[in-house]
Amino acid sequence: MTFDSRIINLFGIDLPIIQAPMAGANGSAMVIAVSEAGGLGSLPCAALDTEQVRAEIGIIRQQTSKPINVNFFCHTPPDPDPAREATWRETLGAYYDEYGIDINDVPPAPNRSPFNEDFCTIMEEMKPEVVSFHFGMPDPALVDRVKTAGCKVICSATSADEAVFLEQHGCDAIIAQGYEAGGHRGMFLTDDIATQAGTMALVPQVVDAVSVPVIAAGGIADGRSIAAALMLGASAVQIGTAYLFTPESLATDLHREALRSARDDQTALTNVFTGRPSRGLINRVMRDVGPMSDAAPAFPTAAGALAPLKAKAEEKGLSDFTMLWSGQAARLGRETGAGDLTRTLAEDARKRLAAFDTF
Amino acid sequence: MTFDSRIINLFGIDLPIIQAPMAGANGSAMVIAVSEAGGLGSLPCAALDTEQVRAEIGIIRQQTSKPINVNFFCHTPPDPDPAREATWRETLGAYYDEYGIDINDVPPAPNRSPFNEDFCTIMEEMKPEVVSFHFGMPDPALVDRVKTAGCKVICSATSADEAVFLEQHGCDAIIAQGYEAGGHRGMFLTDDIATQAGTMALVPQVVDAVSVPVIAAGGIADGRSIAAALMLGASAVQIGTAYLFTPESLATDLHREALRSARDDQTALTNVFTGRPSRGLINRVMRDVGPMSDAAPAFPTAAGALAPLKAKAEEKGLSDFTMLWSGQAARLGRETGAGDLTRTLAEDARKRLAAFDTF
Repeated sequence: MTFDSRIINLFGIDLPIIQAPMAGANGSAMVIAVSEAGGLGSLPCAALDTEQVRAEIGIIRQQTSKPINVNFFCHTPPDPDPAREATWRETLGAYYDEYGIDINDVPPAPNRSPFNEDFCTIMEEMKPEVVSFHFGMPDPALVDRVKTAGCKVICSATSADEAVFLEQHGCDAIIAQGYEAGGHRGMFLTDDIATQAGTMALVPQVVDAVSVPVIAAGGIADGRSIAAALMLGASAVQIGTAYLFTPESLATDLHREALRSARDDQTALTNVFTGRPSRGLINRVMRDVGPMSDAAPAFPTAAGALAPLKAKAEEKGLSDFTMLWSGQAARLGRETGAGDLTRTLAEDARKRLAAFDTF
Repeated sequence: MTFDSRIINLFGIDLPIIQAPMAGANGSAMVIAVSEAGGLGSLPCAALDTEQVRAEIGIIRQQTSKPINVNFFCHTPPDPDPAREATWRETLGAYYDEYGIDINDVPPAPNRSPFNEDFCTIMEEMKPEVVSFHFGMPDPALVDRVKTAGCKVICSATSADEAVFLEQHGCDAIIAQGYEAGGHRGMFLTDDIATQAGTMALVPQVVDAVSVPVIAAGGIADGRSIAAALMLGASAVQIGTAYLFTPESLATDLHREALRSARDDQTALTNVFTGRPSRGLINRVMRDVGPMSDAAPAFPTAAGALAPLKAKAEEKGLSDFTMLWSGQAARLGRETGAGDLTRTLAEDARKRLAAFDTF
């Protein structure tokens, strides 16, 4: 079996490297740098409104003619749940006291918008080469419109079952997101984190379960792990954490500092920041309240009650309430530009694959 | 970078494949078959007494002159804790009622013996080429004696920190046990399963942290994953679950049946069977009581209270209380002899490595 070129052919890219969309941590600058280098840059739109999405894609299209990916969340926004919200604020009560915050002054979290008609219309207008979804798929009618516009559609699966579901719902390729991955888990057929498979186990089982090409994600951060993912049968890789170290990243100084000293055993999946399981570097609130808490309200509303604590602590230089998203391989990161990183990762993987004599 | 031949040279084996020691699920027959095929067969001694260890090694030595591995647990046996034991039996009370078992008739669990003077003396006599430990290392004086006898010493690490500890305590090589691995996690510097890294993330970070060669374990079950592990920088792989399908395996029919229908998302780490986290296929008691339970007493005593339930349920053909150890890649297993499996795995990995043209 040789290199599976389906993804680079499908997307029209040179290198089998997709920069993971990281809501809040990357915008147009990183997309431009990665796509210009021959990978696939990804614009995360989960925290953007329609005007921002249009503006960011506009900037990208002015600066590169290379293929790009535009990413949306596909959660169902929760109904207001005042009782649960009250329990959550009570759980955090001691922190409010510590920082002299009046619980009643804390505004509710803004409800993030999942992929919808308005975003779909922008996709039809701006026709990014790839549109990716997280937390399952949007309404089939919207998927049809996106595909009719000529965009390739991909989505994250955290199990072979989810991968089969995605293939049946029109995905042109599937991101197999292993347990190691930083940020939000794309899981949508289950909410049980105990059964989530690591990348080494997940990728071959997803490859065997579907006929579309598979993109490996989770714990991939250098040439060794890219080469390994291709050996597993992946047609490309999606890399997030390694791009957080680049100047194009929007990661805060506190986040970068935490990443620089990260080790393999310092992350956990937590729902305390947003209400959905997401992997980040362990900090005070994760340790005290989580990492998983039954008290955390539904995604994305958990974030509201933490916002004032985050702001006050960050003023003091503390990341006690900050979401420090990171996968398990942050330690493999290096500080360089996003374009250079893309080229270097590809070159390292190529060298490793080419030089390897068998045993 | 080419294939790292340090492990095959260190152990004197032909193929970079170590059959994982599986207490209760393999004995001498599997060791002989794997070692004869050119891999490293491993005899698990955690559930054996000194006479059984001597007898099993005797049988192996009569049937193969190839190198073998003999494996021991290195836990600290717990002091009796009647209060905790009572809580545990109470937790299982409804099951006792269902099966008409009198709690007072349930004998305590036998306390498994960790590696000790007696076992050490047998190692000095029988000189297996490799001695492996799980749950950390024994007393340094015992390690010295084992090494003086000419045995190579290896042990499992579940983090880069544990790997560094093991190198500093005399290990000639380190097994990097990823989150995907079936059976007991070898973790010994922490008991926090939330921070455990997957194989894809763990192996390169362990390789970077130590100077001794690294054996990758966890989610490795076919030629693809062996090739991937070598790309990550491992010098060999350790494979467990795939060997449970072989005729040499001592796995029960119930266990085999569960393995045959296993999928990537049907295992979890659980402490309900023994008191320490171990990965198995999810069954009734794991679902009801766990998978992780604060009520489970210390390793290995949790097993005692479950023993009569296991026996009664198995009589009815139910595996509701049976430890169905499995890694996350059972689905990649195939039914063939342990020797043939070893050769086929090696051949598949070789082909994949040799044929791979780069992108």
